[in-house]
Formats: sequence, structure tokens, C-alpha cells
Amino acid sequence: MSFAPAVILARPQLGENIGAAARAMANFGLSDLRLVAPRDPWPNERAWSMAAGALGIVEGARVFDRLQDAIADLQTVYATTARLRGVSKPVLTPAEAAGRLRAASAEGVKTGLLFGSERAGLDNDEAALATALVTIPTSPDFASLNLGQAVLLNAYEWWKAGDATAPARLDHGPLAAPASRAEMIHLFEHLEDELLKSGFLYPPDKVDSMRLNLRAMLNRAALSDQEVRTLRGVIVSLTRGKKRRNPAE
Amino acid sequence: MSFAPAVILARPQLGENIGAAARAMANFGLSDLRLVAPRDPWPNERAWSMAAGALGIVEGARVFDRLQDAIADLQTVYATTARLRGVSKPVLTPAEAAGRLRAASAEGVKTGLLFGSERAGLDNDEAALATALVTIPTSPDFASLNLGQAVLLNAYEWWKAGDATAPARLDHGPLAAPASRAEMIHLFEHLEDELLKSGFLYPPDKVDSMRLNLRAMLNRAALSDQEVRTLRGVIVSLTRGKKRRNPAE
Repeated sequence: MSFAPAVILARPQLGENIGAAARAMANFGLSDLRLVAPRDPWPNERAWSMAAGALGIVEGARVFDRLQDAIADLQTVYATTARLRGVSKPVLTPAEAAGRLRAASAEGVKTGLLFGSERAGLDNDEAALATALVTIPTSPDFASLNLGQAVLLNAYEWWKAGDATAPARLDHGPLAAPASRAEMIHLFEHLEDELLKSGFLYPPDKVDSMRLNLRAMLNRAALSDQEVRTLRGVIVSLTRGKKRRNPAE
Repeated sequence: MSFAPAVILARPQLGENIGAAARAMANFGLSDLRLVAPRDPWPNERAWSMAAGALGIVEGARVFDRLQDAIADLQTVYATTARLRGVSKPVLTPAEAAGRLRAASAEGVKTGLLFGSERAGLDNDEAALATALVTIPTSPDFASLNLGQAVLLNAYEWWKAGDATAPARLDHGPLAAPASRAEMIHLFEHLEDELLKSGFLYPPDKVDSMRLNLRAMLNRAALSDQEVRTLRGVIVSLTRGKKRRNPAE
């Protein structure tokens, strides 16, 4: 059985930030929200409004008085903190932490991501209850991230660690497909034939390199079959253009 | 010469979101903010308060009436959009886009990341001015990201693409170093010697496997030199404990 990590907010101060955390969780496939001693009364109106569509997560949030109760059932807990403490603990990037959480979850290990309060983050005793620390790499000139941002970035990495989206793809939409080589060769020949007639492909000793450059440009464009038909229509139209624009001529 | 990408916000509505974008830029090493036809008057009080420490970016933001003027000097512009259009365009993940932006910037190419308005994102004509699209992978159940979150995730990926932080490290603090093998071996032998005397390592045919298990636990803990000294003090204290706790005994 596989579990997504719980998100545990220790002593959160502002309802807005709890709502922002819930929204980020919904964006990236997390749902188990746990609050430890929230400062403002709970349930909190501002959490509801910041959560946007993620109301189920806010409504399902469990509230605990003590951190040890909030994480008692978990086996692996990573604590997000910008500060290093005077103790020896593994420090992970969010991406590395996410990969480890995916692997642990896939084996049925119950996991959690722990975040401290807005004002001062996690204190040493809180961090000591976690199995490892996660530090988000930031510019040293401006390292301050708010609670909602910290949850967002960790939740995003969790999602990415299990996401198979191709890093780059060419989307042609539902009606088009990448052009076949035959379609491209007909386009090349059509264009080159017209450019020979029009005198653009001249003088003869330059024609080969000019043709290669044109073909390279068209290949780089990674055309769809529809786009090849469009460009062939463009060539036809341009070669007949003067007649069409001024039928009286 | 290397340039970090400009961040271009097309028709942003809320000053808060401009401020959140500026703050995310400061977190992740971006500084060139450009606004196209912001809805609310500019400069905007709410942008200032949301930007927290990133005031230089808000103050330096340039305002344009038209998108084509805001991106005129750029050579590579990626447009973040959740929606696919009826045109064929490369679609990149933020991580892939960030890698390409780093590579282009390192060659002196001027780059930008374009974001649409809060209400409806980029329209087709705006997206058509970009060289590729960036789509943030999200849970299909809740794909809505706000403008500040979209800027944050793309800025974070930009930073990560140039960041050499080790994915995992064990931080021992400035005063400690990983224990040497000699220190560990002395710890093993000290503990095992006391456990033989106390009768824990018994019967003799089990001693070897018990020793190996204890050594495996201690190795997994990846102790520092300081921690080895602490544990040796623990062993001494436990073996002498009764005397200390009750000197009259």
C-alpha cells in the first residue's frame, strides 16, 4: 500500500498560510493536513478563503496539541528548515527528499513533511523529532520563504518525483500529426521549383548551399502535416499573388 | 556575458501578486521585472507590502503598454500556460525550461519568462510571441496555480538549474567532523568489552552475530568524532552508574 506524505504545520500563526498550504497540497496530490497548536482559532475563515478549491483538505485537517502526537503514526518525517542546528543530521534538498519519500511511500512506509511556524520556523526540539532536515536552496541574498511557499515547493517536488511528463514535447493538438518525411520532401521540392523559376535560386554554383539552408530552416520548424499543407498553399498563393490581388491587372 | 531571465507579467491585476512575484524572484536570483499594462495603478502599495525584502525589484520594475515592447530586446521567451492552444508549439516542463534558459544565458542570449493575467492567463496572441510554452505539472484534480505560485516555481527551477547544493549531506556543524574508522573501532571494542563483562554478549556462539548487528547500527548512525566521544562517555557512565547515583551504596 502506498501513502502520500502528511503535511504537519507546527504552531502556524495565520489562517491564510494554512489555506495556502492546503491549496499547494491539492495542486500536487497531497491531502493529509495536520496542525499542531495553531495560534488563531480553528476552524479559521481566512484559511477557507485562501484554500480556493482545496476545501476538502482544510475541512479534513486534524488539530493536535503536541507535535509528538501529530507524528506518532509516521515512520519517516522530514523537517523543512533554513537554519542548521548544532546537531548532526542529514540535510536533503527538496528534490532528494521527494525521491526518498516516493520510494518509502511505495514500500508502505508512512511519511510526513514537517514545517515550523511563520515567525521562527522549527525549534531545536521539534527538529529533533524528524528523521532528516530539508533545506530549500535559495539565493543567499534573500533566503526568506514564507510558509505557503515552503509547502508549495516541497509538494511540487513530491509531485514531480512521481510524474512522467516528458520534459519537452511538441504538441500539435488533436487534429495534426508530425509531417512525414515524404510530406517534407514534397514541400522542399515545391518551394525550390518555384524559387528556381522566380530567379531566387541563382547563380547555379550557389544553388546547392541555398537549398540546404532552406531545408535546414524548414526541418528545424518541426512542422505538422497541416502546417505543410498551409505552407504549400502559401507558396501557391505567393506565386499567383499579383493576379489575385488585382484581377483587373 | 550572462543574463538572468527577465520576468514579464502581462496584464497583472493585483498588486499583491506583483509583489509575490518580486519576492519569488529575489529568492531565486532574478531581478528584471517588467509589467505590461497592469490593471491597478502603478506604483502599487500592495505590491510593496507583499514584496517583503524584495523592494529593489519592485522599484526597478519597468511598465510597458504593449507586450511586444516589453519583450523586444529578448531572444528567447518562454510563456507559462496551463492551457494548450490549437497551434503547434514546444511545451516544456519548468525544469527543462530552466536548463535551456541557463544554457542560453551562459551564451549571452537574452531570455525571459512570460506570465499571463490572473483571470485568464495568456491569450493566444500573447502566447504566439513566445518561443516555447512552459506547463507546470500538477495534479489533474486541482491544476489551478495563482500568478505568484507560477512565478515561484519557475524561478525556483531557474535557481536549481545553476545550483550545486549536494542533494544529501550530513552536516556536523563547524566543531565536528565525521569519525575516523579508528575512532569507530575503539568505540566498537569499548562497547563490546563492557558487554562481555556485563554478560550481554552471551552465549559464545551468538556473540559474533550480536557484535555484527551492534556495529551495523553504529555505522548507520554516521557518527561524528564528537558523538563517538559522547557515546564512550555514555558507556563509562552506564557501567559506573550505580556507584554515581548512590555514592553511599
